[in-house]
This record gives sequence, C-alpha cells and structure tokens, in this order.
Amino acid sequence: MHIVVLAGGIGGAKFLAGVRAVARESGSEVTAVVNVGDDVTLHGLRICPDLDSVMYTLGGGADPERGWGRRGETWTVKEELTAYGAEPTWFGLGDRDLATHLVRTRMLDAGYPLSAVTEALCTRWQPGVRLLPATDDRVETHVVVEDDRSGPQGEAARAGLVAGGSQKAIHFQEWWVRHRAALPAKRFVFVGAEASKPAAGVLEALAAADAVLVAPSNPVVSIAPILAVGGIRDALTAPVVGVSPIIGGAPVRGMADKCLAAVQTECSAAGVGGLYGARSAGGLLDGWLVDTSDADVTVPGVTVRSHDLWMRDEASTAAIVRAALEVAGV
Amino acid sequence: MHIVVLAGGIGGAKFLAGVRAVARESGSEVTAVVNVGDDVTLHGLRICPDLDSVMYTLGGGADPERGWGRRGETWTVKEELTAYGAEPTWFGLGDRDLATHLVRTRMLDAGYPLSAVTEALCTRWQPGVRLLPATDDRVETHVVVEDDRSGPQGEAARAGLVAGGSQKAIHFQEWWVRHRAALPAKRFVFVGAEASKPAAGVLEALAAADAVLVAPSNPVVSIAPILAVGGIRDALTAPVVGVSPIIGGAPVRGMADKCLAAVQTECSAAGVGGLYGARSAGGLLDGWLVDTSDADVTVPGVTVRSHDLWMRDEASTAAIVRAALEVAGV
Repeated sequence: MHIVVLAGGIGGAKFLAGVRAVARESGSEVTAVVNVGDDVTLHGLRICPDLDSVMYTLGGGADPERGWGRRGETWTVKEELTAYGAEPTWFGLGDRDLATHLVRTRMLDAGYPLSAVTEALCTRWQPGVRLLPATDDRVETHVVVEDDRSGPQGEAARAGLVAGGSQKAIHFQEWWVRHRAALPAKRFVFVGAEASKPAAGVLEALAAADAVLVAPSNPVVSIAPILAVGGIRDALTAPVVGVSPIIGGAPVRGMADKCLAAVQTECSAAGVGGLYGARSAGGLLDGWLVDTSDADVTVPGVTVRSHDLWMRDEASTAAIVRAALEVAGV
Repeated sequence: MHIVVLAGGIGGAKFLAGVRAVARESGSEVTAVVNVGDDVTLHGLRICPDLDSVMYTLGGGADPERGWGRRGETWTVKEELTAYGAEPTWFGLGDRDLATHLVRTRMLDAGYPLSAVTEALCTRWQPGVRLLPATDDRVETHVVVEDDRSGPQGEAARAGLVAGGSQKAIHFQEWWVRHRAALPAKRFVFVGAEASKPAAGVLEALAAADAVLVAPSNPVVSIAPILAVGGIRDALTAPVVGVSPIIGGAPVRGMADKCLAAVQTECSAAGVGGLYGARSAGGLLDGWLVDTSDADVTVPGVTVRSHDLWMRDEASTAAIVRAALEVAGV
C-alpha cells in the first residue's frame, strides 16, 4: 500500500510518526508532501521550518519539549548576529539548525531543486518516509494585516500626502513568530503559488496512492498552501481522509484559531471540515476523522467518523492513523 | 601624522595593537591595509581570516591563547556540518566567527564592496584603526604543489592515458590548514591580482601617509599578495619600513619558513630583507628593523636597525613601532 500524507510542521511530524509505525506493520510506503509556505530566507539562509520539523522529528533529532528545532540546541550564532545588529532578531535560529540551512542554501545556490536537497539532508536523518516539498518553486505565505502606519510612510499617508494603503502584507514568519499571530490577519496570500508546479515526485506519489491523509495540521497556513500548488488538487484521485486539528473547539497546538478567524471559519471540527469541503461538491474530503468529543459533527457529503485524536505517543497516533485509513476504505 | 600598515592576520593584528598605542599617544591616524589572499568561500560563506584576526584582536574579541578566532568560541555548527558530510571538514569554523561570515556574505551578496562590509563589521568592534582590505576584488592565494595523482585522474595520468600534469594548485587555506603546509609548495599564485584594483580608500591613505610600516607578517603569503594588487606598489611614496618576521633564523609564529623555501629565500632577517629589496633597486624598503640578535644583518641599499622584536605585550610592541617610525624618520 502507498500512503500519501499532506502535512505541515510540528503536528504533521507527530502524525507522520504514527503513519510510519502503521506502514512498518503493513509493509506500506509513505510519502509526505510537506508545506513550504512557511519557508523564508533570513540572514541569507533558506529556512524550511515544516520540512525540518518533520525531518528532525522522524529522524530523532527534534527537541521534544520545545516542540520545534533541534534537541540540545544552542544559540551562539543568533546572539552574535544580534550583537552585529543584523535583522531580524526575532527568529529562533539555533546553531544546530543553522547547519541544516547552510547545507540547504549551498545546494540550492548550486542549482539543486528543494526536493533533491531534502533528499540529501534525509540521508543523514533517515526519516523512514519519503519527504517531498509540495513544490520546488518558491511559494511563500504572506499575511495581509492592518498597516499601523508607523514610520514616515505612515505619517505621510495619515496626512493624506501619499496614497497610503491601510493594509500591508508581511511574511508568515514575521506574523507568526515576531507578532505571535496577534495582529489580526485579513487574509493569507500564497505568493508564487499560481505559477508553481508540484515538486519532482509529488504527482507520481499521488498517482500511486491508495489513500491520501490530511494531517491534523493548520488548515489555513499548512494544508491550503500545499493545495494551492498548481496541479496538486487535480491529482488527488485516491480517497482523501482528513484528521481534524481542532478538538472540542480549540486547536490541539499552535494558533490555528487566529488563522481560521481570517477565513471566517469557526474554530471547530465542523468548521474545518466544512472549510475543506466534500469532494463531491468540489472540495477536498471523502472522509473526516474527528475527536470522540466531536462525534456529533457532520459535514455535508463527507463520511465523518470519530476517534480519540490526542497524539500522546506513537501508539496512540498509530491508532488514529488506522482509524483514518479505515475511513479511506483501505 | 598618518601611518599606514601593510598587515596579514595574527602577527599583523598584534603589531597593529602596538601601532594603535603609539598613535593614541601622538594623535596619529592609522590605516591598516590588510591581506585578502587568505580569503575563501566555504559552506557558502565568505571568510576573511586576516581581516577578522585584526578586527577581533583590536576589538578585544580574539582568543588570546589559540591565537586565532573568537574568545569563548564553540563549534556546534561545524560538528553538524560534519554530521551532514558537508565538505570541507578541516576548516576551523567557529559558531561566533560564523556570524561574522553570515553578515559579510549577506552584505557582499547585496552588492556592497568588501571595504564597506568591513567598515560595517567594525562599527561593532571599534578597532581604533581604519581597516581596509587591500582590494575589493577577489584575489586568492593558491599554492602549486606536486600532484600526488591519487584518484582516477591520477591513475589515468600515471598510465599515460591522459596528459596529467604533475602539479596542481590548491587554495592557500587547504595547504595551510588542511595540510599544515606539509606539502612542499612549488610556488604561490595570487589569482585575480593582475586585474585587481586597490580597495576604496587605499590609494588615498597611501597618498596621505607619512610612513608605511610593513608588519612582521608572512612576507610570501601575507605581504606579497597586498603588493600584487594593481597600483599599490606605485602608490608607496612615503618612507617604507619593514619589521622582520624572522628572529634568529626562525619565524616568530606561523610557518613562514615553509613559504620562504618555495621562493628560494633563506629563513632569516637578511633573507626576507633581501626578498623585499631596496626601494632604490626597485624593491620595497627604505628601512628594515631586525631583532637585536640579528643586529649584524645588512640589506644592500636599505637602512637596517635593530630592536628587541618580541611582541610580548602592547608596551613592548609599541616600542618596536616607535623604533620603526624612527627608521622612517618621522
């Protein structure tokens, strides 16, 4: 059996550990198609937070307490960059993590596509599943927020001297990490998505898939940018089953509520299920797995099943995966 | 008074601390024109060992025991790069040091010349002298060595299948750091020197100089690549006084003996003085300061004076500088 998982970072990584466990039992192949919308270039380094979260977690190198970055991380380079006044200072750039970005940046500069770079990095980490970026093209999530009109430009706009817009777009990382998602998001823009193509191997994996699982990742900024890559939606021919990232009206982790508000979607299993929509109505899902506490949820046109969705450990996560595969009928 | 110092890395940095002390007493200005021949791009980072040695030393950030790199240095990124199998692994890339290279690389990529980048880095370090790279162009010292003809190319050459040369050129850092200068050097090539121009500010500093001091740096791989930059030799109109890097037939530090052998020059104060040569005979020097143990040295056409040349501390180094300035007649 071949399972394809659409995944974001930390939640996706945890879920994939369960998928890997199930695949090992059944001798299945797993391909993770990972969001690149969070990717950013800082200090000249190309940083792919979601790919790295998955790679480190599955490779045993992730920090289990902090939830992101490397185990035993240190922050010497970041402190030094700050001493130089090098911006930005708000991004958590660890020393161990930085080596990954150096290797990646060097390979990208040499002309390798991100999929090949990811494969090269994985020769060290041996994640046990095939990791593919959604696209080898540059697709970056930007967040449209109210312009606070600070600075000279803002002053001029307030004074009516220039046609200052009242909104501005900032990179997702700036919104998420620097502002802790506290600036109300008007909307999300996946810059470059329209012209993008799936990364090498993505369409082949989807064509060979017996089931596509949508990890309990952030639907708005992790899954949507994957689906925004040209050609991926149309290639979803296998049954698609999503696992709800919302349990009892709250995100399992992260700040999905802030993102859902921007797309006028209720922060609930029903809300996210409806946002994804039924395949029969032009949406994504054949099946939707919700937590037992959300067992009464319905999504028109979608088979909804419930299961304990708390990913406490690999065993409980594997049970979730088995339940999702069962909904997929495989 | 305006003093210009031609300098390499560690020896040059120590010497410059003495020059700065003397300049502070006399209210003089100091410009250091620093070798860039050791510069190298590794892991996508532009590394300028001599500029950094001077900057860290004068800025109080150098490791006094190791003699190079940063005080309190750690090596996390290097260990991680090695875990990825990223070559080369032989270069001592410290975490603190790396931040400097990141800032530099980013600015160079943005189009700033190395002189502007150096000035920006120095706003943090406040070295107290003006630091200029000899050139903003890329000039790199390569070392011609015997080809050991290892690998398939070598095999083919030995078998007479391809016209394999018996020599190859490697970057200075590979020869110096990786091979500890143990491969006999046939000659040194300053790649790019012919087409290079002095960095912004160098010619102006030389034109304004009351004296030019040649630091007790490696004559072959630190001073020669500065002089190889187009236009610098011709701009030396002020009196030029060199300070011998050789005391009693041995280099004060480093492996100058290995370099001098490659240019068929005796490792002695007389040998290096002769290598630099008298200005009256088309050479570099008006004066040559040697150690008291070398007081009997003569260099045809050059005023030779002796002084205790051991740079034990800033005071003893300042005394050397005063003696050199006296030879220069200023």
